[in-house]
Amino acid sequence: MLASYHGYILDLDGTIYKGNEAIAESVHFVHALAERRIPHVFLTNNSSRTPAEIAEKLKRMDVPASAGQVYTSSMAMAAYVREHWGVQRPPVRAYVIGSRGLVHALEEIGVVFTDEDPDAVIVGIDRSFTYEKLVKAQRALLNGAALLATNADRTIPSENGYMPGNGSIVAAIATAAHVTPTFIGKPERWIVEQSLSLLGTPKAETLLVGDNYDTDILAGINAGVPTLHVDTGVTPAAELTKKDHQPTHSLTNLDVKLLGL
Amino acid sequence: MLASYHGYILDLDGTIYKGNEAIAESVHFVHALAERRIPHVFLTNNSSRTPAEIAEKLKRMDVPASAGQVYTSSMAMAAYVREHWGVQRPPVRAYVIGSRGLVHALEEIGVVFTDEDPDAVIVGIDRSFTYEKLVKAQRALLNGAALLATNADRTIPSENGYMPGNGSIVAAIATAAHVTPTFIGKPERWIVEQSLSLLGTPKAETLLVGDNYDTDILAGINAGVPTLHVDTGVTPAAELTKKDHQPTHSLTNLDVKLLGL
Repeated sequence: MLASYHGYILDLDGTIYKGNEAIAESVHFVHALAERRIPHVFLTNNSSRTPAEIAEKLKRMDVPASAGQVYTSSMAMAAYVREHWGVQRPPVRAYVIGSRGLVHALEEIGVVFTDEDPDAVIVGIDRSFTYEKLVKAQRALLNGAALLATNADRTIPSENGYMPGNGSIVAAIATAAHVTPTFIGKPERWIVEQSLSLLGTPKAETLLVGDNYDTDILAGINAGVPTLHVDTGVTPAAELTKKDHQPTHSLTNLDVKLLGL
Repeated sequence: MLASYHGYILDLDGTIYKGNEAIAESVHFVHALAERRIPHVFLTNNSSRTPAEIAEKLKRMDVPASAGQVYTSSMAMAAYVREHWGVQRPPVRAYVIGSRGLVHALEEIGVVFTDEDPDAVIVGIDRSFTYEKLVKAQRALLNGAALLATNADRTIPSENGYMPGNGSIVAAIATAAHVTPTFIGKPERWIVEQSLSLLGTPKAETLLVGDNYDTDILAGINAGVPTLHVDTGVTPAAELTKKDHQPTHSLTNLDVKLLGL
């Protein structure tokens, strides 16, 4: 049954690895995809790293990967900004709260970084977030800037357990300015459709694989892409029954048997 | 009509002064209350200053006031913690995010300040809020601490326009830990009932005066205390018609004629 998919969109944390530890079945699975030249991309809401850095991390874990196979919420943000504002002269001005991965993606499309009268406030996870940054974001938004956020994750996994995710930073900013953010990452359609273009396979023949119901599985459901829930991360399989919309498939973990092997 | 009230609960910012500028009619009004020995307290959601500091500010503006007449959301928080946890041995342990006014009020009731396994995370406006503080708050809450917040104000007025209020800081924390905060300040009943005890007048004979519908007027409505809206601050009188529940009275400003003078 799963053997009929011609492309795979694979979540990372909780699906391919947990923190700094690879999930053995998933490593084996990605090797099988690579050997058979089945198109696949890694799709992550993590906005803090560049695709090259994430590919390096994967390779250190013996997961075959190139930067061109990694699609992040920062890249989806850059694509959104480019499509939304077009190619402008003068270019888009943004007040950016975020880490290297987001800055890198926005630099590539020529965004001007400024806190003086920006067109948009663009927010990704930022472990050096402060009240002062909140003040600048609020002021820009009250002056009419748009609020764009890479993702709404409440928490992020870390070596020391859960840490506050970008959703919590965005909540502070949205509350202070009384505005509704535009989210880009999973579970939004936008990021899934962008990764599909990268992959080049039709929706119905592509499988989106992830552990987190609220981000991964809902992303597939929202974009009309078949989904596989794996019980190796955030959402236990037992919780799926409580959900209104079910993933297309649900399995204990990623296994090469699913490819008909 | 208004002359029949025997006690007054007066909001500060937007009602007695705007930022650092006194509202002339209100200064005159407070003088009239003081001369006639009509009981009155100043009730503010501002948690950053001590009552002595606020009384000093009022006196600099020629508003007669003593520290004993000022009731802040920090004082209401201390009263809540004392009532909720009682007099404990060992005392209540709290991770506190906030300013001098909140620290002062909690010190007075013997709270132990710690980020190690606290009973509560207590949050007031903190202009030195950081991601690191958010991390500590989240960890404490995921370990079972209660989340208490002085107030939910999205914004606070300042010399430079609006600044992010405590509600925005609390939004970040509540989102990261996926918990619902307990709010203490206006529009909650608790703070109004505490200020009534200080005043000593019955609810029906006490008038709560304020400019902000969502904090002041709703506080009175929630606590069952008659209210007077003044059109000198946040909520324009024209907006009142859109509200489900109306203040008892609405006037352009505080005027001694209201006391039958």
